[in-house]
Amino acid sequence: MLKNAFYAQSGGVTAVINATACGLIETARNHTDKIGKVYAGRNGIIGALTEDLIDTSQESDAAIAALRHTPAGAFGSCRFKLKGLEESKAEYERLIEVFKAHNIGYFFYNGGGDSQDTSHKVSQIGEKMGYPITCVGVPKTVDNDLPITDNCPGFGSVAKYVAVSIREASFDVASMAKTSTKIFVMEVMGRHAGWIAAAGGLAAEKEGDAPHIILFPEIIFDQEKFLAKVDDSVKKYGYCSIVVSEGAKNKEGKFLAEAGTRDAFGHAQLGGVAPVIAQLVKDSLGHKYHWAVADYLQRAARHIASKTDVEQAYALGKAAVELAIEGKNAVMPTVERISNNPYQWKIGLANLADVANVEKKMPLDFISEDGFGITEACREYLQPLILGEDYPPYENGLPQYVVLKNVAVPKKLSTTYNLK
Amino acid sequence: MLKNAFYAQSGGVTAVINATACGLIETARNHTDKIGKVYAGRNGIIGALTEDLIDTSQESDAAIAALRHTPAGAFGSCRFKLKGLEESKAEYERLIEVFKAHNIGYFFYNGGGDSQDTSHKVSQIGEKMGYPITCVGVPKTVDNDLPITDNCPGFGSVAKYVAVSIREASFDVASMAKTSTKIFVMEVMGRHAGWIAAAGGLAAEKEGDAPHIILFPEIIFDQEKFLAKVDDSVKKYGYCSIVVSEGAKNKEGKFLAEAGTRDAFGHAQLGGVAPVIAQLVKDSLGHKYHWAVADYLQRAARHIASKTDVEQAYALGKAAVELAIEGKNAVMPTVERISNNPYQWKIGLANLADVANVEKKMPLDFISEDGFGITEACREYLQPLILGEDYPPYENGLPQYVVLKNVAVPKKLSTTYNLK
Repeated sequence: MLKNAFYAQSGGVTAVINATACGLIETARNHTDKIGKVYAGRNGIIGALTEDLIDTSQESDAAIAALRHTPAGAFGSCRFKLKGLEESKAEYERLIEVFKAHNIGYFFYNGGGDSQDTSHKVSQIGEKMGYPITCVGVPKTVDNDLPITDNCPGFGSVAKYVAVSIREASFDVASMAKTSTKIFVMEVMGRHAGWIAAAGGLAAEKEGDAPHIILFPEIIFDQEKFLAKVDDSVKKYGYCSIVVSEGAKNKEGKFLAEAGTRDAFGHAQLGGVAPVIAQLVKDSLGHKYHWAVADYLQRAARHIASKTDVEQAYALGKAAVELAIEGKNAVMPTVERISNNPYQWKIGLANLADVANVEKKMPLDFISEDGFGITEACREYLQPLILGEDYPPYENGLPQYVVLKNVAVPKKLSTTYNLK
Repeated sequence: MLKNAFYAQSGGVTAVINATACGLIETARNHTDKIGKVYAGRNGIIGALTEDLIDTSQESDAAIAALRHTPAGAFGSCRFKLKGLEESKAEYERLIEVFKAHNIGYFFYNGGGDSQDTSHKVSQIGEKMGYPITCVGVPKTVDNDLPITDNCPGFGSVAKYVAVSIREASFDVASMAKTSTKIFVMEVMGRHAGWIAAAGGLAAEKEGDAPHIILFPEIIFDQEKFLAKVDDSVKKYGYCSIVVSEGAKNKEGKFLAEAGTRDAFGHAQLGGVAPVIAQLVKDSLGHKYHWAVADYLQRAARHIASKTDVEQAYALGKAAVELAIEGKNAVMPTVERISNNPYQWKIGLANLADVANVEKKMPLDFISEDGFGITEACREYLQPLILGEDYPPYENGLPQYVVLKNVAVPKKLSTTYNLK
């Protein structure tokens, strides 16, 4: 009897995680001799634990195709981390119980670092807990911090959004600077790494172009040096445009702005460093400012997604199914860069053991010597990732994103599972 | 001898004010038998006062054409309000001195309410101060508060940006809501009127669609009622997506968040009501939140401009020149709506006397009875304004916006003018 597949979206969603779902489900539909149904976890892995499965076979081909241009997580995602096989034995046993009940032999987990750690653990339940399963991790994270893969789906589209947005807003500020706003601060995501902030630097193609300053989490914030640079920009160009990472820290290692709440993974929830920076400039140099906090807009902005990112996201979903059919367990398809110019890439392969719990940092030689910009090496790496536009269809002036029916698979278990 | 024209951009810039400049300059170039050169004021009217004129004839046809897809103000704008002819006599005399020196017989002023008041005053200097000039105001303002014209160029594109962005971010929140973020708050512009906030409502096409709540400046913020509505949304839909106008006020008439600084027109400079609302929900209902402040991103977002808006902006610039050539003084071309469905419009005409100092409020019947949404009448009005996409050209993954040479017209006056 054909084994069914389980697919779940995990962690923060992106503009293109559904493109991966699209690639995965469409490819499974092309291999009905190898894979039965694709069941999606409602709200990620929680859907498996609570036996809340979505029957994707109830969705039309058109609906699945529309996932390619729909942002966010069509099946729901969650921030829920499974611990080790020993420590969280009850949870893994529950997963096996659900998998068994629904004849699930393939496990696809679409997420970032924490999620690939979970994928890796699930890949071991065959050997360690006697339930054979083919487990393939599928990369996704706007944080771009997974190892081995050249980049992570979701990142390229955020990068494009940030570069486009800071270019546009800076044109605005430049127009107004003579008598009004001289300082613009745009806050972007990136808790621990400056990948997204660095992408803002792509907008600056020649001397004087905005942004003039990027504040990275990797570089301790030096107030004096920063203010001198702002002053210099205003004197030279009439204004100063700044991209600041939410993860920017002071010399005590504290986030410049910290909301004080923590997410389910125990990460500090940030927001609001932009007004802090803007006010500092105002207080010190007296310039009028404006600031923006892009927040979810940046990672949901499917309307300005990178075509490269969409294609890679789709290809990785497709590759995941192909790997599973080949019987590869405990692996993750990756993006491999062949060349920068012209940009060429192909799908590669990583072992989940090498991915789990390894965080790819941004190379320090990607940050310019003064700490406020990006280097050529960084530009060469980032540039291809934002290439191409892939516009969604519009109706009534609005992008037409699909909302799936998400029909539940009838429950087979009498036992229920209470989330801790 | 052919009279030259003066063109200036005034007040906050938009995604399409340069499309108006494009229409105006291209049309003038097609009428070289009637109009000499088009001189632009560097940084708006200040450029006239300081005899800092830009010779637009130095720009190639390609550069002028590229203005159509370039956001912000290519010649610089300013917030500088001229008072009455008596009160600011010295300034008007200076304008005449500069106009005379450069043989300027046409005055085109591209701006919002304050600017059309200035246009109106300049249109009187022929009669009252003996310097004949043909003065045509050209509408522009994201605030959409000019009277007579059906809508104002710049608004449709902000409206589209806001509707697209809240739809996208809400898809994101919906994905995460089960275990993480349940509340999303997006702050938008609109000091005195809820036009822009209302546009967010276009994203909600059927029951349950986001945004679930819009907070308008027109409706006094009622904390209890608001929290009850948030609670209801979370219970019904699993999350709550909120658009809040920067101009939202409490029952004392105070802005919910006020930065405390004022712009050159004496308006309070706002920002930061989104975190206030988000924190209120967190404190009262305990839900995890995210918030965004779009700020300049919304009015500069040429990448997602409304095609309707671009076409109207261009047509108004073109009409301004045609009116001037016909010898019409003290007028402003307008957008006249012919029908909603299909949407049809044409260029109309207003007298500046009827435009100056009249602020078009949003009709109260555009706000739903509970005060948190828009009505069908509002939707019918707004819908056509966001219709169509008009993507700029891209290179290296980024929109290619033009930066003009902005060559200065040689000064002819020995006198200088000091801005107050």
